[in-house]
Amino acid sequence: MPHPIIFDTDPGVDDAQAIAIALRHPDIELLGMTTTYGNVDVETATHNALLLAELAGRGDVPVAQGAAVPMVKPRHPAPAHIHGDNGLGNIELPAARGRPDPRNAAQFIVDTVNARPGEVTLVAVGPVGNLAAALQLDPAIVDRVRQVVIMGGSIREGGNVTPVAEANMFNDPDAAARVLTAGWPLTLVGLDVTHRCVLTPAHMARIEAGQGELGRVLAGSYAFYRDFYYEFLGIDGCCPHDSCALAWLLRPELFITSRGHLTVATSGDAEGQTIFAPEGRAFIEARWSRTPLVDVCLGVDGLAVSDWIADTLA
Amino acid sequence: MPHPIIFDTDPGVDDAQAIAIALRHPDIELLGMTTTYGNVDVETATHNALLLAELAGRGDVPVAQGAAVPMVKPRHPAPAHIHGDNGLGNIELPAARGRPDPRNAAQFIVDTVNARPGEVTLVAVGPVGNLAAALQLDPAIVDRVRQVVIMGGSIREGGNVTPVAEANMFNDPDAAARVLTAGWPLTLVGLDVTHRCVLTPAHMARIEAGQGELGRVLAGSYAFYRDFYYEFLGIDGCCPHDSCALAWLLRPELFITSRGHLTVATSGDAEGQTIFAPEGRAFIEARWSRTPLVDVCLGVDGLAVSDWIADTLA
Repeated sequence: MPHPIIFDTDPGVDDAQAIAIALRHPDIELLGMTTTYGNVDVETATHNALLLAELAGRGDVPVAQGAAVPMVKPRHPAPAHIHGDNGLGNIELPAARGRPDPRNAAQFIVDTVNARPGEVTLVAVGPVGNLAAALQLDPAIVDRVRQVVIMGGSIREGGNVTPVAEANMFNDPDAAARVLTAGWPLTLVGLDVTHRCVLTPAHMARIEAGQGELGRVLAGSYAFYRDFYYEFLGIDGCCPHDSCALAWLLRPELFITSRGHLTVATSGDAEGQTIFAPEGRAFIEARWSRTPLVDVCLGVDGLAVSDWIADTLA
Repeated sequence: MPHPIIFDTDPGVDDAQAIAIALRHPDIELLGMTTTYGNVDVETATHNALLLAELAGRGDVPVAQGAAVPMVKPRHPAPAHIHGDNGLGNIELPAARGRPDPRNAAQFIVDTVNARPGEVTLVAVGPVGNLAAALQLDPAIVDRVRQVVIMGGSIREGGNVTPVAEANMFNDPDAAARVLTAGWPLTLVGLDVTHRCVLTPAHMARIEAGQGELGRVLAGSYAFYRDFYYEFLGIDGCCPHDSCALAWLLRPELFITSRGHLTVATSGDAEGQTIFAPEGRAFIEARWSRTPLVDVCLGVDGLAVSDWIADTLA
């Protein structure tokens, strides 16, 4: 039985790789994509989601546009030095032919979850404002989703946009605080594992060969993203952050998870940090242990995940 | 040439071990101890500092009492389950005969530093309110101390009293923010290294045999502290947190340090967290990289440090 999922995304180079997996993997039924600002502005995100689906011959997949800005704080400029101005490494792209779903992302999520209660998995790999907005429209979806998988946060690894915060959580810490403590079955796939995975040029060569026109876009955008990783992090390759969320969904045995309580710092110098209190561990006050229990990924077989990505798309 | 130091402390079982080193090591000239609330209330801290010096035959060492409470926030109760009600594992203790210095801790620090400009090292192993108060009396001491060594904080290790904060920093985050960003030559010796060091029962047997009446107090209080470590952390032995600050001072080659900028979260759920931005690393905003450069310990040869403690006191 494939997993019916909604993929919430801000494509983005590593988002594009994950979208390709969501479109291609036989164990995933992609019910739709919802888009948000983040790696790019939301209009670009929507265009890219439509285009990537079309390039895969899956122009039938609905794409619903969502949040253009964070819930509370002002928006930071998109990181064009990482993903390019067009989100896909500034390579030349055709225009998408399709149109977005008439509903906004939050409404799409609510409608889709309620149409198949107990079945739908939400996989979110950008700032989580669309999930927060869906909870605002219909809080009862916490009991109707099958599970929620979030690429974001960092427990022990430190941050990537601040010393302690990961980009998706920093981009909308208020939405993250809402979504990560909503009380639905949730797994956080953060930098503690995504930084252990490297998609190498050899992996990408296999993907390019296997994916036709879509492969050309994945490989071209990867080349741009790779420059960033090499210059700033000294890695030859890139961390396939967003694909890790799908790897966790389909290959959980490759991950080590820990159960506990998450708190998200929404202001001050720790803004956007995901604070994890392991289940049963006593601290000086109870406040960190009052949020609902969730699972966080703390360890991973990074080579196996990267191979799984390449094998899926080769 | 021995290091002239002022030892700021809240003894405390592991403080007592470090005080013994400060009293005994030939490379340390102990100019005085200053006391603070923390592991115990400040009156108990002062009593214990006086008593430990007397038991070592060093009743000449001045002890100046300082902060009874944090600078801003209310005080948490002392952790009697870790250090005992008397700070030394509830073993029976004689009364100290000596009296504290007539000056308070902050004045003692200011006077002592100014009397020997460029020579004095401040080693602080409790909440750092006394150092903050000294800076308030005479900010110019930042240029007159030789260096400042702080046992406190955590960069990657997570916290011990909250998921992200170490006890000394959590106990007075406002003082910590002042002291860690004052611009003096500073090294942070935090949980990233102290949790890698374990003082075993075999180490303590050697210390007990070597230290006469002082050894009886160190071993008796260790036995109580050891129960806490075994029950809560599954370690047979204890982390000699405070002695690590002196180990760094005298055996820096056993540590791996990194240079960068510290920020202390003073409110919210990350309260008391020490946020470290490595020198030269760019983040999404400059705010984490604006504080003065300091050194933080990130790695250690834990066995060598524990052996050094036992060798010093055996």
